[in-house]
Amino acid sequence: MFKQITIIGTGLMGGSVALAAKKRGLVERIVGCDRAETLERARRAGAIEAGSTDPAQACAGSEVVVLATPVLAILDFVDRIAPHLSSGMLVTDVGSTKKEMVQQAQAALGGEAGKRVLPGHPMVGKERSGIEQADAELFEGGVWLFTPIAVGNASCTAGGGAWRGNEWIQFVEKLGAKPVFMDVERHDRLCAWISHLPQMIATAFASTLEDYVGDDDQIKAIGGRALRELTRIAASPYSMWRDIAMTNTANIEEAMLRMEQKLAQVRENLKTTGLREEFERGNKFNR
Amino acid sequence: MFKQITIIGTGLMGGSVALAAKKRGLVERIVGCDRAETLERARRAGAIEAGSTDPAQACAGSEVVVLATPVLAILDFVDRIAPHLSSGMLVTDVGSTKKEMVQQAQAALGGEAGKRVLPGHPMVGKERSGIEQADAELFEGGVWLFTPIAVGNASCTAGGGAWRGNEWIQFVEKLGAKPVFMDVERHDRLCAWISHLPQMIATAFASTLEDYVGDDDQIKAIGGRALRELTRIAASPYSMWRDIAMTNTANIEEAMLRMEQKLAQVRENLKTTGLREEFERGNKFNR
Repeated sequence: MFKQITIIGTGLMGGSVALAAKKRGLVERIVGCDRAETLERARRAGAIEAGSTDPAQACAGSEVVVLATPVLAILDFVDRIAPHLSSGMLVTDVGSTKKEMVQQAQAALGGEAGKRVLPGHPMVGKERSGIEQADAELFEGGVWLFTPIAVGNASCTAGGGAWRGNEWIQFVEKLGAKPVFMDVERHDRLCAWISHLPQMIATAFASTLEDYVGDDDQIKAIGGRALRELTRIAASPYSMWRDIAMTNTANIEEAMLRMEQKLAQVRENLKTTGLREEFERGNKFNR
Repeated sequence: MFKQITIIGTGLMGGSVALAAKKRGLVERIVGCDRAETLERARRAGAIEAGSTDPAQACAGSEVVVLATPVLAILDFVDRIAPHLSSGMLVTDVGSTKKEMVQQAQAALGGEAGKRVLPGHPMVGKERSGIEQADAELFEGGVWLFTPIAVGNASCTAGGGAWRGNEWIQFVEKLGAKPVFMDVERHDRLCAWISHLPQMIATAFASTLEDYVGDDDQIKAIGGRALRELTRIAASPYSMWRDIAMTNTANIEEAMLRMEQKLAQVRENLKTTGLREEFERGNKFNR
């Protein structure tokens, strides 16, 4: 599908895009951009053919540039590569929040932003980071959200003609993902509820366990599947979540506050029929 | 191992004990006790040979009586079958809280309680209940907690001689479980943290989602593995959890309060380095 793409940030997500594309024969050549040591690991993993620590150099000659770093670095890279974008080159990303990315693209590219940048967010991941965790099947069966930037009154997806964004959307489908399009405000609010709140819950739960029963070495052996499931993603790195917390603060705060209120309500009703109502509501979500 | 055992409550847990025992050839005959309609389903599932709606009748001639109902019903059955216990008959259970069960056994059997009753709690389960969910492999690889009742200064497990409790402990090992023994106070406190708090978190989270984004039919399709993991057990039935909440209230309240405080702390530190500390503590739990 593509002769050459550039992946900026060759960790879990960028590496998985590379391995998935190679396995399916979708790209002839992948150029990485990261620290030299990380590029070397990506090369050894078979994820990239070439690499550069300089983003402008890494982008030269590519049809698509994929930003696959934590969100704050994505914002920086949008700024840094904007002057180097050649005609027909598409910038996309895999960041977990989208509103600030869209604003940054509009600030850097003005009216061109909608044509040149397609913000994306695959709803998959792992709790451990790094190229060694990269997986050619990571996107199989998952959803890949897109928040296209409006061009005039319509977003690019609505327009006809040769827009490289359409090729990228077909590309992610070939990786096994299902593209879903939504408004950027709705994206960040929805992800606060279904992705960012779960992370904060898991982190808070594991941290609380560490505080109160962390010295009990039987806990993990005794705990069943539910304990493992509710603490698995607490292994996720701060470096990634700091940026999500920084760029979606108000939505996450609201979701967390509602969760705290609900927990208090459940606690205050442990011995009343109020508990039944909460269980029935929880059961309903799972139907 | 046993000629006949009685299982009172032939749902998910009782049914799984029955199927697991039969598959491994550990019992010649299993008698169920439940409502007539439930017994019929257990018979069709191949879990029991005979059944009675009357507990005294169901227990006659059995070496072991397994109480596998929700906790409040277990407490009732301890009382009801106490007068019908013949010499050498062991009563055990699979209830999720143990302190009130131990107190009930001591009230009903006095100094005999330690010899006649072995409180147990397999740390496995499923979010759906009923005999149709029963699984001969449910206990494989799980822990089976026991809180033996003291006899004089020592618990029965410490004494020599022919105590039927030892046979039951070997039996659960043959089902694939690992027996772990602990003090009843520690059991209820530990389970509040690693089993009851996770349930209340999942229920509160699913209920909150239902409140604020329940009308968005894309949520479950978009949400990834973490969303599924954090809401799976919210499908668990109120009927079981009401009894756990009623019989371990103080421990669950404390664990929930600590969790609420931690969530508030994380929320108040979304933009500070306080977030790093909580992620590092959460990471530490998962190491």
